[in-house]
Amino acid sequence: MESEFPNLVSGIPEADVGLFTDLYELTMAAGYFREGMAAPATFSLFIRDYPPRRGFFIAAGLADALVYLQRLAFPPSAIAYLRSTGIFPEDFLDSLATVRFTGEVWAVPEGRAVFANEPLLEVTAPIIEAQLAETFLMNIVNFQTLIATKAARCVLAAQGKTLVDFGLRRTHGTDAGMKAARCSYLAGFASTSNVLAGKVYGIPIAGTMAHSYITSFPSELEAFRAWVRTFPDRSILLIDTYETLAAARKAVAVAQEMTRQGKRLVGVRLDSGDLVALSRDVRRILDEAGLTGVRIFASGGLDEDEIARLLDAGAPIDAFGVGTRLGVAADAPLLDSAYKQVAYGDRPVLKLSEKKATLAGPKQVFREYAPDGTLLRDTLARRGQDGPPGAEALLVPVMAQGRPLGPGPTLAELRQTCAAELARLPAAVRDLARPSRYEVRVSPALETLQARTAAAVRQRELG
Amino acid sequence: MESEFPNLVSGIPEADVGLFTDLYELTMAAGYFREGMAAPATFSLFIRDYPPRRGFFIAAGLADALVYLQRLAFPPSAIAYLRSTGIFPEDFLDSLATVRFTGEVWAVPEGRAVFANEPLLEVTAPIIEAQLAETFLMNIVNFQTLIATKAARCVLAAQGKTLVDFGLRRTHGTDAGMKAARCSYLAGFASTSNVLAGKVYGIPIAGTMAHSYITSFPSELEAFRAWVRTFPDRSILLIDTYETLAAARKAVAVAQEMTRQGKRLVGVRLDSGDLVALSRDVRRILDEAGLTGVRIFASGGLDEDEIARLLDAGAPIDAFGVGTRLGVAADAPLLDSAYKQVAYGDRPVLKLSEKKATLAGPKQVFREYAPDGTLLRDTLARRGQDGPPGAEALLVPVMAQGRPLGPGPTLAELRQTCAAELARLPAAVRDLARPSRYEVRVSPALETLQARTAAAVRQRELG
Repeated sequence: MESEFPNLVSGIPEADVGLFTDLYELTMAAGYFREGMAAPATFSLFIRDYPPRRGFFIAAGLADALVYLQRLAFPPSAIAYLRSTGIFPEDFLDSLATVRFTGEVWAVPEGRAVFANEPLLEVTAPIIEAQLAETFLMNIVNFQTLIATKAARCVLAAQGKTLVDFGLRRTHGTDAGMKAARCSYLAGFASTSNVLAGKVYGIPIAGTMAHSYITSFPSELEAFRAWVRTFPDRSILLIDTYETLAAARKAVAVAQEMTRQGKRLVGVRLDSGDLVALSRDVRRILDEAGLTGVRIFASGGLDEDEIARLLDAGAPIDAFGVGTRLGVAADAPLLDSAYKQVAYGDRPVLKLSEKKATLAGPKQVFREYAPDGTLLRDTLARRGQDGPPGAEALLVPVMAQGRPLGPGPTLAELRQTCAAELARLPAAVRDLARPSRYEVRVSPALETLQARTAAAVRQRELG
Repeated sequence: MESEFPNLVSGIPEADVGLFTDLYELTMAAGYFREGMAAPATFSLFIRDYPPRRGFFIAAGLADALVYLQRLAFPPSAIAYLRSTGIFPEDFLDSLATVRFTGEVWAVPEGRAVFANEPLLEVTAPIIEAQLAETFLMNIVNFQTLIATKAARCVLAAQGKTLVDFGLRRTHGTDAGMKAARCSYLAGFASTSNVLAGKVYGIPIAGTMAHSYITSFPSELEAFRAWVRTFPDRSILLIDTYETLAAARKAVAVAQEMTRQGKRLVGVRLDSGDLVALSRDVRRILDEAGLTGVRIFASGGLDEDEIARLLDAGAPIDAFGVGTRLGVAADAPLLDSAYKQVAYGDRPVLKLSEKKATLAGPKQVFREYAPDGTLLRDTLARRGQDGPPGAEALLVPVMAQGRPLGPGPTLAELRQTCAAELARLPAAVRDLARPSRYEVRVSPALETLQARTAAAVRQRELG
């Protein structure tokens, strides 16, 4: 998939892509340069642990990661800024002019389920290149995986009801608004309110009306009538501006006027109050007027918990607009992701930091399935090692010598991938409140490598 | 302040600025257009209530809001996309070609304290223009105010210690990373790890080294020595890769080698483990070697609570790197902001929605001060009304006829504004865990307007 905008990489101008990084990536690069260290290093991007109530993650962000790696460079304007800081040796600054990403990437395809400690992607490249990419790769994979996971939870809660992304106004900035639309669609949302995401990603766009439309008119009834004049084929009337049930009756009057003109009111929207009681009352008002085809749309602070609660309570709601709490993953707005070096040259490496120790060496994740097709268990193994018989190798090569291996799936294909994946998750792992911990084994060969590497480090550093 | 990038508005290409909006803004615009509604409307952007443990907000995002309003437009490529959706009448699409923002904006300057229900900004413009701006204005003001507020809390907790923004890798996308650097600096952080924010905003950049630098070398000691060779004047050694106290002793050895060469080790960084105990032990190891000038830098999951806890426990930490929990405002990642119509033409308007009712009419906030200079109380009043004697009018005109009134303050000036503002906050309001509710009165004239408008609405809509 190409970048969303020509000459932009996730909202960063191409000339500035190299500078979208933490300072220490550049100072470390200067350090490697000074020492003549140019061996390939492997870095592994993974999530250390589950946030509260999470039992799985949906991988996302790879397409943007690959765009970034193809654009990573330091044109003269970038080098001029770095020079102005006075931090860097001149020969290093000169060397940056020719830096490009020339390495390889193995990754879990977007839309697939991943679990704690499993690499989402592994980068192998001359160490300066692999190091410089850390900040952007973490930023873009972390956020998209966060939102795809949150959106997947909403999809599981919605039991087939229609979901629309309404998050744009309160996502954390503009790039988040674009990526949240992308990832919620990937996870199974039907559409987004984000018009630019419609243009850029081809996602269906949807929306109703705001309270301001109602308050701009001398009366609610006049507002409703004006709206259906403008959009006779796609009107959804917002009915909570003043008093919901009174407005529902006005909507009935307008719908009956439409019926006489051969038109049909599509729906009404509730945005506040007790949505269980109101949706029932509104449904009854509509049904008693013979308007059984008019849909009820709900919004206002919704998330997977509230959607599940509403549906469990039998609220006759047909579609949900999910906004802020999706767009910022409100109950768990961060993933404890890491991008850790696991090899330098031929040498497996690790760190032993308390509660943040890492597993050495490049890896593969092997996935086994139960006879009914649901996920059975994963095995974290050394890359190149054989997996259990019949197991699927989850990490696939996606870039070699700095070039993507193929065009990558379309967003529509990723959406199908994710839907299939959610269907294969064991029900206990999918549970929204108290998920079971999915089994991720460490292969004996990886265990051995880990023990040997850790022992060598301990002896060397503490002995 | 100008946009951060030429031809970009917060990461959105200028040609696409108009499409960065919720679909309903455009369908409502089509509705107003069809009905010939072009009177000026006033919209008020405010935060409905405090997130948990918040007693104040620091206003931010205005500079970007004003850039956006100057660039809002629909070039042919944008109109072509909208036409392709089949949603809009052709005459409305034609009319979009000449849409520009021609209205006025009153706003609370960035860096000032604001409280729940107080407008951060008010837009008055022909209704289509004011409506179209809703999504972007909310997005940009909401997030920057969120982060400036969170960063201000860290500044209050840090009691004058140095704070560095380390959030870039886990902010929600790229734009959030840029804005988080800007807003944390505005709120009093000393620097950021975000190199591009250094270039774009002129913020000092800072950083240390990652574990990968250590693990790239055959031993930790060799890594330390190589580092101080590259950066003899600015080395901060990361000492938790394997075992912190062993590494501290290696840092002492390296520091002593540096001393013999007339150089000085700047500091060491702790990134995991029990930071109270480790910082004490490391301080003692350094001091016993006569290295009393070597600073201790701490990072790893920090936020205002953890900073306060560390300092209360007497941890001898000189500087804090604050990352993810700042960059996503982890404990409260959303603000319940709203952009509500309060007038159309000469008519004050409001909505009555349950728990989301709004106050009618354009407003002013008057602020009174205690004799010692601390904030005493605010009064929410009708715009144009006189305030209490000697009170400060907080909302000031910043744009008229679509043009900004003056160049706006520099980021350095905003930083001074915020520092002065934090010093003026009553201690009880500033409290990080259980802030007192700052008094915000509603003026009698606004009360009267509200009661009269609500009564008229009730009679009209429910009577």
